[in-house]
Amino acid sequence: MDIQELLSRQVIETESRIVLLVMDGLGGLPVGSQFKTELEMAKKPNMDKLAKEGALGLADPVGRGITPGSGPGHLALFGYDPVKYLIGRGVLEALGIDFPLKPGDVAIRINFCTVDDKGIITDRRAGRIGTEVNAKLCEKVKSRVKISGAEYFLEPVKEHRAVLVFRGKGLGDKINDSDPQVVGKPALEMKGEDEASKRTVKLVEEFLEQAKSVLKDEKPANMMLFRGFACFQKYPQFNEIYKLRSCAIAQYPMYRGLARLVGMDVLDVGPEMDDLFSALKENWERYNFFFIHIKKTDSAGEDGDWARKVEVIQAVDKQIPKVLKLKPDVLIITGDHSTPSRLKSHSWHPVPVLLWSHNCRPDLAKEFGERACSQGGLGRIRMKELMALALANALKLEKFGA
Amino acid sequence: MDIQELLSRQVIETESRIVLLVMDGLGGLPVGSQFKTELEMAKKPNMDKLAKEGALGLADPVGRGITPGSGPGHLALFGYDPVKYLIGRGVLEALGIDFPLKPGDVAIRINFCTVDDKGIITDRRAGRIGTEVNAKLCEKVKSRVKISGAEYFLEPVKEHRAVLVFRGKGLGDKINDSDPQVVGKPALEMKGEDEASKRTVKLVEEFLEQAKSVLKDEKPANMMLFRGFACFQKYPQFNEIYKLRSCAIAQYPMYRGLARLVGMDVLDVGPEMDDLFSALKENWERYNFFFIHIKKTDSAGEDGDWARKVEVIQAVDKQIPKVLKLKPDVLIITGDHSTPSRLKSHSWHPVPVLLWSHNCRPDLAKEFGERACSQGGLGRIRMKELMALALANALKLEKFGA
Repeated sequence: MDIQELLSRQVIETESRIVLLVMDGLGGLPVGSQFKTELEMAKKPNMDKLAKEGALGLADPVGRGITPGSGPGHLALFGYDPVKYLIGRGVLEALGIDFPLKPGDVAIRINFCTVDDKGIITDRRAGRIGTEVNAKLCEKVKSRVKISGAEYFLEPVKEHRAVLVFRGKGLGDKINDSDPQVVGKPALEMKGEDEASKRTVKLVEEFLEQAKSVLKDEKPANMMLFRGFACFQKYPQFNEIYKLRSCAIAQYPMYRGLARLVGMDVLDVGPEMDDLFSALKENWERYNFFFIHIKKTDSAGEDGDWARKVEVIQAVDKQIPKVLKLKPDVLIITGDHSTPSRLKSHSWHPVPVLLWSHNCRPDLAKEFGERACSQGGLGRIRMKELMALALANALKLEKFGA
Repeated sequence: MDIQELLSRQVIETESRIVLLVMDGLGGLPVGSQFKTELEMAKKPNMDKLAKEGALGLADPVGRGITPGSGPGHLALFGYDPVKYLIGRGVLEALGIDFPLKPGDVAIRINFCTVDDKGIITDRRAGRIGTEVNAKLCEKVKSRVKISGAEYFLEPVKEHRAVLVFRGKGLGDKINDSDPQVVGKPALEMKGEDEASKRTVKLVEEFLEQAKSVLKDEKPANMMLFRGFACFQKYPQFNEIYKLRSCAIAQYPMYRGLARLVGMDVLDVGPEMDDLFSALKENWERYNFFFIHIKKTDSAGEDGDWARKVEVIQAVDKQIPKVLKLKPDVLIITGDHSTPSRLKSHSWHPVPVLLWSHNCRPDLAKEFGERACSQGGLGRIRMKELMALALANALKLEKFGA
């Protein structure tokens, strides 16, 4: 039996409250003369105190050696098997702009591109047109392109990227990208692997035929490439599985979208770090599971800015007393994956986990850091097991068997 | 999805180079007044330096408590599930003499034995006849025994052991051994569990009938017992799965055979330890994955010679600078299983793993040893996950999901 299925059978509804505080890309690698990771270097007296009282461990989001994207990382945090519930790229793009997908929708990533008069691609990104130009082009296409047999939605994302969604009956997503990944070639013919996917291809071709003529005099974005066909399926709902009233306190669209995907309420929240924790306080009585998402640890890691990542962690640490004041039953501080500033990218390294509750078994740790976590009492876990520990420590799980 | 399948989807081809240095039977148990294992006792400044810079862990080749043979141990090192891809004993025996098996071949272990004039076994090993006598008997049998409907190959192995291979259409291997495991009884009747296996039995009986008459006046080897029927199937190929150009640098036939089984190039190499590392240097440009096999750690362990095992480890340590001079991107030092000299046999104890690369997350270890590994940052892994870590550290894996 899958762990999530087991949990759904054992879980009971209680008022106890769980806070899952996710610092995106938290895990790091040591650098410099002190040879410390960002988390090890950060002055974070509040987290270190929690580490002394709580239990530490390391979590693999997908598996040893596997570098996860944000989708798999968060699904694993929410207790979903990230391989079984892989989210297609088109769907993730749509979630990233808060597009309200419905089950059965097929979402596709669009690149505006440039082709010559023979249809040969000369720029796969149309010179990275500005987002405003993109938005105008999308409006123009939408006002003129009419297709039959399905609804479509076209929304700008950023620069040359947009998202196209088809809503209709029996649409499939087993379709190759039309992007040949190189210039000097025409767009690839799209082929559907099954009947449902062939239906989608027909719609896309109808759409493209008209869009081409709408765009033909535009410069430089006179054509579109299609990538990452993905059908949106309704996920098993977080609140039903775990008998929780959950909410997401996140500022970035993709993470709001991921939370919405599993059925969490997504709260309105301002742009500052303080706003996240104010939202937590304001909504404390309404929910008993709170997913708080901090983006800036990951952004600093991606930028290779070790010092800034240290600062973000320190800034989060200053917010911890506000959380504790609310008296959560369980507080988990972790990441969705590692983003070592040394690598400037997501990585496969396991993610530090701090679990604090009155019911956890404390270990020998004196501080929160990667090396301390490697010695921690939680040991090495699969990220998707974290929800089991959260629920157990909140005393929400019944005994298994007699 | 199986980890190997996941890796095959995520892997990209790069020039980065991985060295997998396997000291056969590396893991040990502590003995003596200092109560150290062979690895803990060995003076090995080079490996200890790598341990400080790298990450340690313990690997279970098959599972907790399971003592692996050399086949499962190596398959797990190569990233194959050793239970799913179990190698039959007949096949392993054939690999051990470099016999070029083809898919569909059925390989059988032969014991020359002694029977009395009523066919009762009086010596299951025919007094352990010399290998030369064995070879002459095999020649004699081959020159006189002619069977129809399939090809056969008979090759001496060592002392009283030989290997018999049938090559034909639709042959099975679900057949009991004819060896009753005791003297004072006749050989057991062989029975095939399915049609394909019944076909094999028919061939074996035809072969045996003639071989008996060829051997009837030989002393003491006047009869044969059949064991370990195993059909050879082509394994998924290492280079295709991982997009690598791999080679094996191994001196002993069985390990060369195991490497050939998964499609590695098997290099010619002299008999000394220096020869292994010279071969590494000479072939450095041609490959990007190098499996180096050291047999003598295991032999010393099997002989119960703790001091000799320490010496072998020390001798390997002296070769490490030659490896580092080549600037590998990833260097892994481990074993295929444990062979504690205290037990004089393979054992179930997990195997020490040292992984060194510029991209690994260093842990608190100060030296390479079993106890240090139990505290290491890699934690406890299944041996078949090691390839994932090797590929990740060589930056050969793409991000999973968006």
